[in-house]
Amino acid sequence: MIRGVLLDLAGVVYDGDQVLPGAIGAIARLHAAGLPLRFVTNTTTKTKQALLARLTRLGLDEELFTPGEAARGWLTEHHATPELLVHPDLEEEFAGLPDHERRAVVVGDAGEAFTYDNLNRAFRALIDGADLLALAKNRTFKGDDGKLSLDAGAFVTALEYATGKEAIVLGKPSPDFFGSALASMGCAPEQAVMVGDDAEADVAGSLKAGFASALLVRTGKYRDGDETRFTPHPTATVAGLPAAVQWIVAQLS
Amino acid sequence: MIRGVLLDLAGVVYDGDQVLPGAIGAIARLHAAGLPLRFVTNTTTKTKQALLARLTRLGLDEELFTPGEAARGWLTEHHATPELLVHPDLEEEFAGLPDHERRAVVVGDAGEAFTYDNLNRAFRALIDGADLLALAKNRTFKGDDGKLSLDAGAFVTALEYATGKEAIVLGKPSPDFFGSALASMGCAPEQAVMVGDDAEADVAGSLKAGFASALLVRTGKYRDGDETRFTPHPTATVAGLPAAVQWIVAQLS
Repeated sequence: MIRGVLLDLAGVVYDGDQVLPGAIGAIARLHAAGLPLRFVTNTTTKTKQALLARLTRLGLDEELFTPGEAARGWLTEHHATPELLVHPDLEEEFAGLPDHERRAVVVGDAGEAFTYDNLNRAFRALIDGADLLALAKNRTFKGDDGKLSLDAGAFVTALEYATGKEAIVLGKPSPDFFGSALASMGCAPEQAVMVGDDAEADVAGSLKAGFASALLVRTGKYRDGDETRFTPHPTATVAGLPAAVQWIVAQLS
Repeated sequence: MIRGVLLDLAGVVYDGDQVLPGAIGAIARLHAAGLPLRFVTNTTTKTKQALLARLTRLGLDEELFTPGEAARGWLTEHHATPELLVHPDLEEEFAGLPDHERRAVVVGDAGEAFTYDNLNRAFRALIDGADLLALAKNRTFKGDDGKLSLDAGAFVTALEYATGKEAIVLGKPSPDFFGSALASMGCAPEQAVMVGDDAEADVAGSLKAGFASALLVRTGKYRDGDETRFTPHPTATVAGLPAAVQWIVAQLS
């Protein structure tokens, strides 16, 4: 029995500047069905506050879970000071943390800040003992030009390869990240469904975390064949969020 | 019975601008022992011509094998046109190749040319069907400031991760690369010894390619513990090239 829904944002609710057709109505239909929902994003080029402001403009007021916030929680809990390799717009999310001896390199989608010098500085901090925190390890995202682009995961993997360290992933598909969003709804994984356009972090990730179902949408960065590229495969692959909600509501009856 | 020696250059014969103590004398001792030798480097920040000019200035006139030359051979053989993600100084090694429909992204130690835009351009060429050629896949090198730095392998791995493609490695530890150098001496792998400061590409790589022995020197980028970091482990770990030659000459008697 489905008792909670997690929705990805980019590629599911909107794509670049555009809200995807039928997305707002589909979310209203989940409300009407009495299903609680939360947003879980791996976007790290904007602060949580900026993402929430956009959701408010769209009339959406659900809770939002971001990797930046999860990383800040990790740093506080582990008494570590971040060395940031993130988008300039995200830096303020890490402001005001106390100074500790323990260091953690925090990697997000830094975009053009992924210069050789910045990566080499992160590499050197890591071999000097810093932990490696990945806000996300996604392989690709759909750029503003509509084409696939290299995502943070590529650079996290580069640093893992050079240092022999394994990154701690804070965003999807971390079971802790999914778990925080589910806990806020009092929903167990086996009662939850995830909807996303990333066959790996959204779909395979949530299924590995024990979700009842995970739906892959053919919007956003979806490419032909994604449904079989990662294991476990999606419970269903659907045209977009309205079809996903149709599928979810049909399970309730 | 040892019938041929392969020597790495950076970290073995010289380190930055400095020739390593005793290196030239050690090479003379190999000559005196009647052992043929070749240089095999993964340096891709200089052309083969520039590296040879330096060797000539040091009075060394052995043949040198470089990944750039191997890549040019691969491109010619496979009728492919390169899309270069290499150091600007290396670009001339790929000049004048005919234009083909088949494309290959060629990744070397591009240094500051590893910008997000250049990496994303390479990523897009790869998902459009280009092959991925790695001049080398080394994890680290010793920078001019004497500190370890992020090497080409990190960026090759980043592109592999994002695209799901596996790179074709042209330099060490490619068995073809070692094989070309050995063939030029008429030496079989089981008669050969490799000397290097890279426990992975030089040492484990040559042993996997069937070499009789591989010696790890504690010069160059060597770090404590390197001798057990990769498998197979070195046949012996020695202070530097003079000690390596001492070890080799001792095997002859």
